[in-house]
Amino acid sequence: MNRRVLKEVLKEQGGRILLLVADGLGGVPHPEHDGKTALEAAHTPHLDELAGQSALGLTIPVARGITPGSGPAHLALFGYDPVEHEIGRGVLEAYGIGMELRPGDVAARGNFATLDAEGRVVDRRAGRISSEECKRLVDKLRAHIRRIEDVEILLEPGKEHRFVVVFRGEGLGANLPDTDPQKEGAFPLEPQGLDFKSRETARVVKAFLKKAREVLKDEPKANGILLRGFASLPKLESFEKRYRLRALALASYPMYRGVTRLLGMETPLSLKTFDDELAYLREHGAEYDFVYLHYKDPDKMGEDGNFPGKVQKIEELDARLPEILQLGFDVVAVTGDHPTPCLLKSHSWHLNPFLLHSRNGYAGMDGLPAFNERVCRQGSLGVFPSLEVMPLLLAAAGRLKKFGA
Amino acid sequence: MNRRVLKEVLKEQGGRILLLVADGLGGVPHPEHDGKTALEAAHTPHLDELAGQSALGLTIPVARGITPGSGPAHLALFGYDPVEHEIGRGVLEAYGIGMELRPGDVAARGNFATLDAEGRVVDRRAGRISSEECKRLVDKLRAHIRRIEDVEILLEPGKEHRFVVVFRGEGLGANLPDTDPQKEGAFPLEPQGLDFKSRETARVVKAFLKKAREVLKDEPKANGILLRGFASLPKLESFEKRYRLRALALASYPMYRGVTRLLGMETPLSLKTFDDELAYLREHGAEYDFVYLHYKDPDKMGEDGNFPGKVQKIEELDARLPEILQLGFDVVAVTGDHPTPCLLKSHSWHLNPFLLHSRNGYAGMDGLPAFNERVCRQGSLGVFPSLEVMPLLLAAAGRLKKFGA
Repeated sequence: MNRRVLKEVLKEQGGRILLLVADGLGGVPHPEHDGKTALEAAHTPHLDELAGQSALGLTIPVARGITPGSGPAHLALFGYDPVEHEIGRGVLEAYGIGMELRPGDVAARGNFATLDAEGRVVDRRAGRISSEECKRLVDKLRAHIRRIEDVEILLEPGKEHRFVVVFRGEGLGANLPDTDPQKEGAFPLEPQGLDFKSRETARVVKAFLKKAREVLKDEPKANGILLRGFASLPKLESFEKRYRLRALALASYPMYRGVTRLLGMETPLSLKTFDDELAYLREHGAEYDFVYLHYKDPDKMGEDGNFPGKVQKIEELDARLPEILQLGFDVVAVTGDHPTPCLLKSHSWHLNPFLLHSRNGYAGMDGLPAFNERVCRQGSLGVFPSLEVMPLLLAAAGRLKKFGA
Repeated sequence: MNRRVLKEVLKEQGGRILLLVADGLGGVPHPEHDGKTALEAAHTPHLDELAGQSALGLTIPVARGITPGSGPAHLALFGYDPVEHEIGRGVLEAYGIGMELRPGDVAARGNFATLDAEGRVVDRRAGRISSEECKRLVDKLRAHIRRIEDVEILLEPGKEHRFVVVFRGEGLGANLPDTDPQKEGAFPLEPQGLDFKSRETARVVKAFLKKAREVLKDEPKANGILLRGFASLPKLESFEKRYRLRALALASYPMYRGVTRLLGMETPLSLKTFDDELAYLREHGAEYDFVYLHYKDPDKMGEDGNFPGKVQKIEELDARLPEILQLGFDVVAVTGDHPTPCLLKSHSWHLNPFLLHSRNGYAGMDGLPAFNERVCRQGSLGVFPSLEVMPLLLAAAGRLKKFGA
């Protein structure tokens, strides 16, 4: 939405909004499951009842034909054009595990890997070592490597073989390709800077990797490191400033927390499950104008091509809907960030089912019988970009004044 | 689609794509034919069956309310914004009849015309002389006019009274209005340059027209010349480079070949009928990643307001569909470039029916009962610009990676 128009019409006050994002919710008809999508196949009495009293539609995640990663898909949902604001994976990952980044920091995702005697990659994930093992290795690295010349090295363990490294110093660029060769049997790629500042970074990264190999040389599995997704902090206006909404983000996966922290949303880092999220919502939801509630499971099942699993996870969400609706939000939207069809076993470019409910009926009530991709085609909202979801939510919450006289 | 994003996500490999464009396919309900469009009235069992296993939608040819010529409509289908890249008719016509243009050339469409003793236009088409007669006249002009000062004059006959003239020299502009007054009884307009370089062209064109009148002065019908559509070559990135697709264009009409040659698609010039196109497709189609197949007849019937004729031509296409589908393309799209409703007897601004089929079902299968304007409204693709067709085809063919993490 045009920033000038938004600024002109935005009110200070209005209704409270809940945006429930069921990750990878949408799909395509599956030939082996009666030509239905998982959402169609699922028994979802509460979603269907809500659909009847809501406005339905379909959203284009980022652009026609474009399969988005979770980062771009969520940025669009929050009203930030993901083509304009590309956020590197390193930044998202660092934010997701709770690291505070500063402007100029260069963050990268790390994998512990197994290298052979000649230095070739034998296992890109070091046999998927445990998270505890990862923590031990990161502590070991920290003990030996605090800085390379003037550049501070910050390390934080993630899940299993994953960690994040942040290079903090003056004059660093983040324009470096991955060092991960993406296949076993190959040598890791040498760090390379693609511009002047990034060449400086590459020199530092090279020295870091050399030191790390020395520190790790006696490790049986994790004797090497691969780095991916070098990135610096993009400049993004905060969500609160843009929309005048005190915002809470409830997500139990690092990636999503990375996005919401980047936008300055209040993002508790202690939540581990959807149950944790709901508990937090019950306790603190009322303090916020806007709550983003993330439900990860349909995406995971879609990625696995597990149709019955996706159906079940959607049904489990449906079962929790009544307690969510009881919390008194004025506007509730239910949608996905992108589809993850079981047929494709991956994110996809198809359209997201979208439901918009307002207590006072102002959003519209289509009276349609169910909430799924097919029914949403008939909805009063038609097909529109995810980028336009926020203005719709604000409007439904009575937070936008008339434009012009 | 954003060029940077496309470049980022485009793969080297993927499925093979066939884009079947039935020219002027769409229409509007005709009050004198049971309120049906020709596509609705036509008996099209094969298209209808394919529709059931495809994703359907409607495309906006160029922009709401804008009736496109064939050039802009096709550019949009191929993913080139026709508003940004306007191609002059002279260039298209020259390309269509097989002339090779160079950067800086100025091409124009010519009509042989009948002028009276005072030089007024009596017949803008010289009684629609035969193509053989046209060739004789062009040969006569060639024999007498090879250059005007430093500017080379290239002439090529077209169908009936039509020909193309190309002015080749240094420092020429193409910003000239037509000399065709568009009505009988009026004098031809004097060539006028609307900028500095084009004034130079106008001077040369004036000298050319004067010489031509001398050469033609004893012709009974074709004693004058009218020029239209002055144009130079626009700069367009090649289709192959943009999409990494080895592309074949099968069209038997010059105009369409003009567009595809401009985009650098392999465009055989020997094809005279749709049968020729299909024969070429059978023989060579497998060598290409992308084939554009053009079917002209519905447009012609629409222009004539011939409803039964348009119905019949659509049914004839339907009858050929099985042999086309047998050729093993992974993705097949069927659509029009623009509607040509019999009710309007002209191109129109309405929406094109659009069908997207992928063998693996990834494109989606709407299970809808037919392929026509009314049913396409219910399709999972919704309404979208023709400009977004290419990303959808690429996505369905598995040729686009995930955008962002």
